[in-house]
Amino acid sequence: MNILLTNDDGILAPGLNALYQIFSKDHQVTVVAPDREKSAVGHGITLNHPIRVSQVKLPDGKTGYAVAGTPVDCVKLAFLELLAVKPDIVISGINRGANLGVNLNYSGTVAAAREASLYQIPSIAASVQGQKGGDFPGAARYIYHLSQETLKKGLQQHTFLNVNFPALPFSEITGVRICRLGLSFPDEYLDRRKDPRDRTYYWHGCEFRTKDTDPSIDGAAVDRNYISITPVKCDMTDYDAMPSIEAWETVNLPATLDN
Amino acid sequence: MNILLTNDDGILAPGLNALYQIFSKDHQVTVVAPDREKSAVGHGITLNHPIRVSQVKLPDGKTGYAVAGTPVDCVKLAFLELLAVKPDIVISGINRGANLGVNLNYSGTVAAAREASLYQIPSIAASVQGQKGGDFPGAARYIYHLSQETLKKGLQQHTFLNVNFPALPFSEITGVRICRLGLSFPDEYLDRRKDPRDRTYYWHGCEFRTKDTDPSIDGAAVDRNYISITPVKCDMTDYDAMPSIEAWETVNLPATLDN
Repeated sequence: MNILLTNDDGILAPGLNALYQIFSKDHQVTVVAPDREKSAVGHGITLNHPIRVSQVKLPDGKTGYAVAGTPVDCVKLAFLELLAVKPDIVISGINRGANLGVNLNYSGTVAAAREASLYQIPSIAASVQGQKGGDFPGAARYIYHLSQETLKKGLQQHTFLNVNFPALPFSEITGVRICRLGLSFPDEYLDRRKDPRDRTYYWHGCEFRTKDTDPSIDGAAVDRNYISITPVKCDMTDYDAMPSIEAWETVNLPATLDN
Repeated sequence: MNILLTNDDGILAPGLNALYQIFSKDHQVTVVAPDREKSAVGHGITLNHPIRVSQVKLPDGKTGYAVAGTPVDCVKLAFLELLAVKPDIVISGINRGANLGVNLNYSGTVAAAREASLYQIPSIAASVQGQKGGDFPGAARYIYHLSQETLKKGLQQHTFLNVNFPALPFSEITGVRICRLGLSFPDEYLDRRKDPRDRTYYWHGCEFRTKDTDPSIDGAAVDRNYISITPVKCDMTDYDAMPSIEAWETVNLPATLDN
């Protein structure tokens, strides 16, 4: 298989290296990843300054592409410029820190997988709970098997997988759950501080603990030591809401709109 | 009503000003917007450097908050720090340039509305096709009426409206269509150039023309001179895909995973 690996922790991150070690044993692997940490950049792309690409040596002496841009920039560069053929699958991660529930909006790891899926290339985003990272080699081995089954069984176009591992040695993980995404916010705050010139600035801060307890929700499953897998759709249309809005007055352009 | 206005074109952009002019006539309006253009930053948030907020004079002499951050930073700052009470509705825009189909992933305008919806505050993202901007006052008047009907009729939690206007005087617009989002990519490319030191750099470029022709799709509707309105869901779970994945071998943790 041809595999594209990317992430948002940067090309030298251990989670990406763990994937590289296992996939490169028997597959053709290309690494196109940000040249530094690009967490929480969401699905952003770089339009206001030029994008640079440099070649870096990977652990086995092969070459990877380090991009001065976002994870989604990396996927676009790979597809539109760097790769001679489209990959069979794109794996993004393994991220240090879970990407669960509402955090799928902020995550660059997930955005890279979503971008591949928009291009109709199968893709998986993978993350490990906790800032220490858990068992990257064990998680990478699981993603290796999951990617093969994903290609064998197939997913609908414009759907990809988001996988989260608890911060445990792989042998201590309880099992796997297919989960929906949580929609509750973790507690978050803006930490107001003063600089030495007495001017205010803010840091964004949040609790990483999910409030969800229903084990069919991704965050609750990971908290109970399960691997969570969520199929994620690219189509954000709320089809159920469409018929009732059709009947709204403003949809039928009333005369009042002239005022 | 208490209204929060934001955008991704920056606090001095004419589309935001058009909204401010009409809403501030009979509502309590707070403006919290990026201090400069922040297009295509997606749902990104600022974690790696502190966020600054400055107060700027709006056209009527009132104060707005200019944020050195992303549109989603603006919404979080407003909700968590700047506003004494949560707004009744958040309007993001009016963006210069359409936000249709796959571009909902990249758009900071849409991300701000999505963030409000994640916080369970009703919200509308509004954009006008074309880089020249079309009829901002006419579009603002329409959004004024639509926001009132949105609050009166109500939307499900975690659903918001994405509205696009054709680049026409309001009186020449054909009508309104409730549309699904297109999933086809516009033609895009990376424009490879050399700097004076002979080093390669790239600009991301794309055609703005949609390839969709089905008038139930947002881009095709706007191309036919309709206003498109799409209800957008925050929940990205692909529920339909879940049952079949439940049966996968890798979901049942086979012994092969130990290798």
